[in-house]
Amino acid sequence: MEQSTAVHTLDSILAMEKRYRAAFINSLLGPKPGNLVGTQNRRHQANLAIMSSAFHLGASPPLVGLIIRPDVSPRHTLQNILDTGYYTLNQLNASIVVPGHQTSARYPEEVSEFEATGLTTEQIRQFPAPFVRESLIKIGLKLLEHHPIKINGTHLIIGEVQLVSVPQQAIGDDGHIDLVSADAVGITGLDSYHRLEQLQRLSYAKVDKDPEPI
Amino acid sequence: MEQSTAVHTLDSILAMEKRYRAAFINSLLGPKPGNLVGTQNRRHQANLAIMSSAFHLGASPPLVGLIIRPDVSPRHTLQNILDTGYYTLNQLNASIVVPGHQTSARYPEEVSEFEATGLTTEQIRQFPAPFVRESLIKIGLKLLEHHPIKINGTHLIIGEVQLVSVPQQAIGDDGHIDLVSADAVGITGLDSYHRLEQLQRLSYAKVDKDPEPI
Repeated sequence: MEQSTAVHTLDSILAMEKRYRAAFINSLLGPKPGNLVGTQNRRHQANLAIMSSAFHLGASPPLVGLIIRPDVSPRHTLQNILDTGYYTLNQLNASIVVPGHQTSARYPEEVSEFEATGLTTEQIRQFPAPFVRESLIKIGLKLLEHHPIKINGTHLIIGEVQLVSVPQQAIGDDGHIDLVSADAVGITGLDSYHRLEQLQRLSYAKVDKDPEPI
Repeated sequence: MEQSTAVHTLDSILAMEKRYRAAFINSLLGPKPGNLVGTQNRRHQANLAIMSSAFHLGASPPLVGLIIRPDVSPRHTLQNILDTGYYTLNQLNASIVVPGHQTSARYPEEVSEFEATGLTTEQIRQFPAPFVRESLIKIGLKLLEHHPIKINGTHLIIGEVQLVSVPQQAIGDDGHIDLVSADAVGITGLDSYHRLEQLQRLSYAKVDKDPEPI
């Protein structure tokens, strides 16, 4: 049975209503990682913002990229990162989707999203930014590079992984972390949360043989 | 019951064996989108490479970021994008995980990964890069910016969405695309593929009320 296909061009995309377009374009690439970004301001007040824009930049050295849009709710996050040089990424899991989502409300600067949503700050080894206790996989990052993306006014933040906390039992012999056991959540579009169902792991691809389940 | 937690610092991460570290660091952020990147070289030979490094950069204008590592298998992709200025992202789905994964084998330049893996090229409206027929959500992109990331030798490619093909029935009234119905796949770590299970969609967060399922 032939399915009906919608084809859009740049013109028809630009003609979409603004929130419709945001939902549509945000859905195109597939599932995105969900992370709560923890920062503090110069007065040590904790801030927390959910983001789905973190991406792996490299393992050696361990680097993470993060796109921050200054025009939406986590507007204190960028300033805090630039002011202090440190931030945390706390992986979203199914137990904290609702308070995590709620961190995107536009709280005034004097309100900590931790207190407003009931999530708990955690200090790990004097790292100078707050972690989220309820998250299972936590990363402490040091700001290395800040690239303003002129084309749309967003900001690319590149951070070096300086501290990682992961449940021991989720780490495999080969370093792979079982994110299903860590109850990881993916985000699609602007507001849709998904659990992961294991499909398969596949062996390193070689030209002369088919990949095998591992 | 208290779970055992592994805490790593930058020093202990840098001391990990190389592939162990790659698997570990690639797992930290959570699920990543899976896309097959279609390009052609100047002689119009089609190339296809699986990547999990695409990210949403903005909806207005519609922009996608892509990190390309020249030192791993999809090494022709970067050159083709720079040479021709166009490329496609074809969202991975559960039916094409195995041939999609196999595109990461180091085929010589004269071998098209389409032919080697059995995936089918599709031409849409004279767009100057090949799409993947078996993919359900396809994006045609024009290269806008190329930022070499000096810190680790990767490349950030920023593209403008010029053409999109999506199953009509997956698009909601609000522009959100139901990626579960589109059989979308997330990637964790280097080689682990996951189906999505719908958890919930949540209403736009406001300061004075809790988010509600939508």
